[in-house]
Amino acid sequence: MKKAAVPGDPEAGKPADAHLVETRLASTEILKGNFLHAMRDTVSLPDGTQATREYIIHPGAVMIVAQCDDGRLVLERQYRYPVQAVMVEFPAGKLDPGEASLACAQRELLEETGYTAREWARAGVLHPVISYSTEFIDIWFARGLAQGPRKLDAGEFLDVFTATPAELLAWCANGQVTDAKTLTGALWLQNVLSGAWALDWQPAIA
Amino acid sequence: MKKAAVPGDPEAGKPADAHLVETRLASTEILKGNFLHAMRDTVSLPDGTQATREYIIHPGAVMIVAQCDDGRLVLERQYRYPVQAVMVEFPAGKLDPGEASLACAQRELLEETGYTAREWARAGVLHPVISYSTEFIDIWFARGLAQGPRKLDAGEFLDVFTATPAELLAWCANGQVTDAKTLTGALWLQNVLSGAWALDWQPAIA
Repeated sequence: MKKAAVPGDPEAGKPADAHLVETRLASTEILKGNFLHAMRDTVSLPDGTQATREYIIHPGAVMIVAQCDDGRLVLERQYRYPVQAVMVEFPAGKLDPGEASLACAQRELLEETGYTAREWARAGVLHPVISYSTEFIDIWFARGLAQGPRKLDAGEFLDVFTATPAELLAWCANGQVTDAKTLTGALWLQNVLSGAWALDWQPAIA
Repeated sequence: MKKAAVPGDPEAGKPADAHLVETRLASTEILKGNFLHAMRDTVSLPDGTQATREYIIHPGAVMIVAQCDDGRLVLERQYRYPVQAVMVEFPAGKLDPGEASLACAQRELLEETGYTAREWARAGVLHPVISYSTEFIDIWFARGLAQGPRKLDAGEFLDVFTATPAELLAWCANGQVTDAKTLTGALWLQNVLSGAWALDWQPAIA
């Protein structure tokens, strides 16, 4: 097996990755829908041959792991048409044009669940679809919650409920939670609660 | 806050979900690319109004958490054009038409890494993109590994390497692993290794 430069390894980085990197030669819009926006790029492969790459352009999103003072988590149940199922998820939503990640997290939590939070911590980022979308999702934790009315968009239907971390992890194990962003949130939650992974808390922005 | 039927709750199920479920009224193909295949459906919302849903049709995929006898995990480094980065991932690949999930997992592990495994266990499924793709990824664990030559497709460039579970989890914590399927695999791995979650092992199929 070829010894590869691994993350954190001094060998990692651009020169070591030259045998993997693809370079854009041309780009064409192939779909401008109401929601989906897709491109087809021609790329140069590491061996100099050419290939095409088709992918969805996405503005990016946030997800919020919001924990009440009693330890319960704020979750949603929402019908997700592409998978034809009601899914259990952490609250999440797309960035508006020019919107900062924390501002989006505060807005989405309030609009979808009615909760505001006194403190926030950015845990990291996840890429849900690295093979065919530019989408990233910033993972936020929130605490110091206060509940008010939610402000759903027209045509938006979702239930808000709370569950303990143990309940959420049981649903991840038994297949009742299969949404990748929520499973990633569960990984973060489990390690934050155990003390293995640390968060850097900051006050909410006005 | 509205009390919602939660997963595992006897209230859950179709009647309780009527206030969430969307029903297809019509469906139109809006993109048939070399790789991406997209539809636009008109749906009836729970309040009887109509909306459109655009989404990618995907055949489904598998991911393999393969652990060597010494505990090290088989990982890949691959350039992912939509996110413009070399990503650390568990081996994964799409189902061929009519292909069973385990057969696909065995084929993809062999083709991409050269490894075969004596024993397999299906951990569960994840949905990477519930808002705009039908994609599911079956999560397989593999053990009893033997290494041989890999059989990459033409135009496929990826490094194979191994790392300890502790290394992988550190990369998840520090942002060097951001691929949602791999983060979900890390959640499974951590809980399988701790004994919190159980796997049902079976022999490889011929």
